[in-house]
Amino acid sequence: MSSNPTFKLISFSICPYVQRPRIVLLEKHIEHEIEYIDLQHPPVWFHEISPLEKVPVLVVNGEALFESMPISEYLDEITPGSLYPEDPFRKAQHRAWIEFGNDMLGQHFALASAKDEKEFKKARGTLAERLDTLEDVLGAGPYFAGKAFGMVDVVYAPLFRFTRELQRLIGVELVTDETPKVAAWAAQLLERPAVVAAVPASFSEDYVAFLRRLGGVASQRLA
Amino acid sequence: MSSNPTFKLISFSICPYVQRPRIVLLEKHIEHEIEYIDLQHPPVWFHEISPLEKVPVLVVNGEALFESMPISEYLDEITPGSLYPEDPFRKAQHRAWIEFGNDMLGQHFALASAKDEKEFKKARGTLAERLDTLEDVLGAGPYFAGKAFGMVDVVYAPLFRFTRELQRLIGVELVTDETPKVAAWAAQLLERPAVVAAVPASFSEDYVAFLRRLGGVASQRLA
Repeated sequence: MSSNPTFKLISFSICPYVQRPRIVLLEKHIEHEIEYIDLQHPPVWFHEISPLEKVPVLVVNGEALFESMPISEYLDEITPGSLYPEDPFRKAQHRAWIEFGNDMLGQHFALASAKDEKEFKKARGTLAERLDTLEDVLGAGPYFAGKAFGMVDVVYAPLFRFTRELQRLIGVELVTDETPKVAAWAAQLLERPAVVAAVPASFSEDYVAFLRRLGGVASQRLA
Repeated sequence: MSSNPTFKLISFSICPYVQRPRIVLLEKHIEHEIEYIDLQHPPVWFHEISPLEKVPVLVVNGEALFESMPISEYLDEITPGSLYPEDPFRKAQHRAWIEFGNDMLGQHFALASAKDEKEFKKARGTLAERLDTLEDVLGAGPYFAGKAFGMVDVVYAPLFRFTRELQRLIGVELVTDETPKVAAWAAQLLERPAVVAAVPASFSEDYVAFLRRLGGVASQRLA
């Protein structure tokens, strides 16, 4: 690694996984370029650098790195400070709750793409149950593990951006007063400057287009 | 963390994710207990310590840690030496190929559970394409990144154990001479003592029972 690496993040507007390294880049004040691609019609070079044709990809001095968590942890490791606790056991717990967040993003997709009311209700119910579980593990806040913003926060911020959009667009209440700690956490995350800046100005519009493309119950409920 | 932590791994016979920490425990000569549970009928205490009701869980001095990679990386971090390269970029690349391996385990499940010939062929085709991709990134071996056995090897060993079983049981050829580097890698992994010892003696029998329970094309092809 040269002492002045250059970074380019290959991105897609509404992708929650892209937001992870983007938030880390912003939090850690790492200079970088962003290139947005259309995942519906990816450029020919994309398969070469992303074997599963997923974003994000981080191009470091011309060499590509794929997968959101390896990229985010790499950026964290090469810069001062860490978004993880120092203790290996606590760090592993944070990583486990990140996996839990991955599952919740899967449930968000199930909700957004549900083809009938039954599927929609099932996904909403699973998300509600996951939010209850989170409520039990959260402490005094404002962030997942207390005062310091960390990698778990990086991962959940894009999820709460989705739940806020769903509430606004189709009135489905996910993060409510019934889980007050989660609600306070989500509000904190969505005000964090790096989180706000992690998506393009077209995000809401692109999310609506995404729901319409999925063509499920959620899209039928759009105004 | 006390200087003499006790470790208990909560396991399920054929689970490929359980094999990860088990291989790390064996490779790093960490004393541990194993408790096998029946995931079809999990004990009542299990949901408490594993919010997604998945194995593995590692109980460290009575405190539970869930998710295979956080557990495996924790065990690697608290013991001398590392199953990852020291350079952060190379380490991140290894983690990215681990995610690729996760996708392949998903494809294995798609193959094992395919309900008709079309689904079966599709999953087999995807696995074949993924194996071609791996062939392109492998070097001179014997392991993923050369002479040292590492975390990528830990993750792919359980996958190759499945492909070997499928070949033996129903004659589906996945790892063949067409990808000679992958074939040599798989053979090396499946001979590694920690890999051999990572599953119970009942593994093959349990895998057959698993295929029968799935009731798909693969189970119909069993003798």
